[in-house]
Amino acid sequence: VKIDDDECWRRVEVSRHGVLVTLNESRGADPVPVVFAVDHRRIVLPVDSVKAKRHDRLARLDNIRRDPRCAMLVEHYSEDWSQLWWVRVHATATEAALSESTVSLLAARYEQYSSPGALTGAIVLTPTSVSGWSAE
Amino acid sequence: VKIDDDECWRRVEVSRHGVLVTLNESRGADPVPVVFAVDHRRIVLPVDSVKAKRHDRLARLDNIRRDPRCAMLVEHYSEDWSQLWWVRVHATATEAALSESTVSLLAARYEQYSSPGALTGAIVLTPTSVSGWSAE
Repeated sequence: VKIDDDECWRRVEVSRHGVLVTLNESRGADPVPVVFAVDHRRIVLPVDSVKAKRHDRLARLDNIRRDPRCAMLVEHYSEDWSQLWWVRVHATATEAALSESTVSLLAARYEQYSSPGALTGAIVLTPTSVSGWSAE
Repeated sequence: VKIDDDECWRRVEVSRHGVLVTLNESRGADPVPVVFAVDHRRIVLPVDSVKAKRHDRLARLDNIRRDPRCAMLVEHYSEDWSQLWWVRVHATATEAALSESTVSLLAARYEQYSSPGALTGAIVLTPTSVSGWSAE
């Protein structure tokens, strides 16, 4: 039922998207869907100009400046509950400048990021713990 | 791009699962996948004996006893990013006794809860705000 660390990371790496949760002083938890890449067990999240935004780019950056604790969940849902699983990473989030290697890493996983200017920044999650659960 | 409240609730109601986030004193955010039902814009989450557990049932109940602020996210991911959308509900969570109407509500949506004893309790989310985003 419990998934070991190596298998947790394997499942994070094959997942195409996850849910990032940052902490907001008044509201508490701010979950938001994210795409990401994994680089030596650090998670790299794009800040982009591709997906039209409301205020959420700023909200998540404001949140991590105030409290860097965050979590990312990847999961598999099925109506057949014997197929359920999820992996959760608790981490410290930091804003990062956009390096060439970050652009390559994200563009290799998401072709939408191949266009010049699509990426405007990055958030890097340094994990503090990982845990996972599988129905079978 | 912004989704209005009625449309947010429509999308919550048709979603088969979501991500509940409760607040942990040390770790910060604890996201976990959940199934749920909506009853007059309150969200009812099962506490069940169906999906094998580690400590997470207790963790989420401990979390809401200490801090009742929580959030639930439902979302749609697609490799075609023009199809992306998500809805987020911020809420106050309370543990609830299992009533006959709660059992009926959840069993009507998930046949797994039709078996006697499958449900052992419930958590009710009373929304404080709802917001949603759609790529198109």
